[in-house]
Amino acid sequence: MNWAIIATWRMALEGVSAASELLKSGGSASDAVETAVKMVEDYPLYKSVGYGGLPNENCEVELDAAFMDGDTFSIGAVGGIKDFKNPVSIARKLSLERFNIFLVGNGAEEYAHKNGFERKNMLTDRAKRIYEKRIEEIKNKNLSPYDGHDTVGIVCLDINKHMAVATSTSGLFMKKRGRVGDSPIPGSGFYVDSLIGGAAATGLGEDIMKGCLSYEAVRLMENDIHPQDVAEKVIYEFSSKLIKKRGKAGAMSIVCLNNKGEWGVGTNVEFSFIFANEKIEPKVYLAYPKGSSTIYTEATKEWLDSYLKRISAPLD
Amino acid sequence: MNWAIIATWRMALEGVSAASELLKSGGSASDAVETAVKMVEDYPLYKSVGYGGLPNENCEVELDAAFMDGDTFSIGAVGGIKDFKNPVSIARKLSLERFNIFLVGNGAEEYAHKNGFERKNMLTDRAKRIYEKRIEEIKNKNLSPYDGHDTVGIVCLDINKHMAVATSTSGLFMKKRGRVGDSPIPGSGFYVDSLIGGAAATGLGEDIMKGCLSYEAVRLMENDIHPQDVAEKVIYEFSSKLIKKRGKAGAMSIVCLNNKGEWGVGTNVEFSFIFANEKIEPKVYLAYPKGSSTIYTEATKEWLDSYLKRISAPLD
Repeated sequence: MNWAIIATWRMALEGVSAASELLKSGGSASDAVETAVKMVEDYPLYKSVGYGGLPNENCEVELDAAFMDGDTFSIGAVGGIKDFKNPVSIARKLSLERFNIFLVGNGAEEYAHKNGFERKNMLTDRAKRIYEKRIEEIKNKNLSPYDGHDTVGIVCLDINKHMAVATSTSGLFMKKRGRVGDSPIPGSGFYVDSLIGGAAATGLGEDIMKGCLSYEAVRLMENDIHPQDVAEKVIYEFSSKLIKKRGKAGAMSIVCLNNKGEWGVGTNVEFSFIFANEKIEPKVYLAYPKGSSTIYTEATKEWLDSYLKRISAPLD
Repeated sequence: MNWAIIATWRMALEGVSAASELLKSGGSASDAVETAVKMVEDYPLYKSVGYGGLPNENCEVELDAAFMDGDTFSIGAVGGIKDFKNPVSIARKLSLERFNIFLVGNGAEEYAHKNGFERKNMLTDRAKRIYEKRIEEIKNKNLSPYDGHDTVGIVCLDINKHMAVATSTSGLFMKKRGRVGDSPIPGSGFYVDSLIGGAAATGLGEDIMKGCLSYEAVRLMENDIHPQDVAEKVIYEFSSKLIKKRGKAGAMSIVCLNNKGEWGVGTNVEFSFIFANEKIEPKVYLAYPKGSSTIYTEATKEWLDSYLKRISAPLD
């Protein structure tokens, strides 16, 4: 009767904590990932997901999200949706359809509207101010506009051996209107098969989708490779391949969980993640690459305090 | 000094013929696939791609297309784009970017407009009439609206061992506004690695994307399995998996080509395709499933004549 849940980034902590309570009392992996992702979407200071997410170059918050059920392979996804409170719930609803499961832009908004999802102006004053400052910086310092693309991705196993995964993101900060990253793309940003395991990725979507990293991770787990080895293999082999083919590789991180509750993370940058199971309370870990391994440790109190200070610091 | 090109559906014949001329004279695989797909997009009687493509439920022609370079993994894709003449060329242009390579809806149209791509009202009188008839049929006969989802997907190897793939489609007939299928999704509708091979899929996108079929095909080719065995394995194993998990599997077909010029096709429905190389002139073949194999033969003159008659038949 074990369960487990793993999520990308510190921002998933509160959501994973709530999901863990659900899982303890026999809740399903599908409900757990949706509950957790919604909490990340709703929290205004997490600036790469949902409400308070950073806008595109036109100062519009365009959101991507997906949901996949590992029992049935049912997938739902939205891309470039504006002004709906919980994109992940729209994605989950779409996963119940046989046709039209991936909707983008106006079409996604129409569907959400007709199905009674809550409208919300997702642009916060804080996100707008960060956008304005960025515009000035780009002008003054000739910087590349693109920076920050943290997706929340959560993979879960429940006590009934059901698995699910969900993702949500505002995508690349300052992206072009209509840009879709890996987060809503099956096999790239997420994948899960309850008979094997699941994975979710975060980082530069444009590079992650070149390698179908989440599908590849699940495929490797099928060969009974431990999720930690899988996660490292996926990230470092694909980074090397990209460097060979293109001269460079963007930031990429992945979390993996198999259907026995074993888990792993791989990353080519500093990366925080959350894990919990029936024995381990939800905790923040910090991971970083070391050669072709990923090392991780529990986040210190100092790191956690400085994180909270940073995300809530006053902006001039 | 061999080259080869393989494409989904009869509609690719003229495009593949033009591409073959290019390849004979040393042209690149990237130019070959773009040239071929553009010809399919431009021809008004091919009713599932480009001009004359069948509209969504709002009578709008929304198009998906993608391009991938097998040397560099550069990918460009558009989803749900309206009223541009050649979506595949927009996708190829996007593949030159590092960021913002997959654009959807209004954003894709803005990009295309700013980059000087030709505008065109892609709805033909014929497509509109087919739409109107369909609306009546659905009302009178209580039919499922979704039918017809033929993507042109073309994989090519040139004499310099460079490989490329491109796809283009108007997607599911009568789809919801904003629906994206597998065609612009890396790893699902297409994938190519010049060091291994490439693949393109067609059929029910909602099911194809559940299995990342094109990525899986390339991965299998990496293990030196013949493309014919790969194509069959991918289609029948994944169809079986879907039936086990969901009780049913939609239409799925795939064309595969490795970097030695060996090729194969797999399908779970009747399916036409085109192949050509330095020895074989472009020809139409008909494939169909037989147990866990795919059988194919050259199309007869009778079949070819009846095809042309069908696509140009007067509508009442």
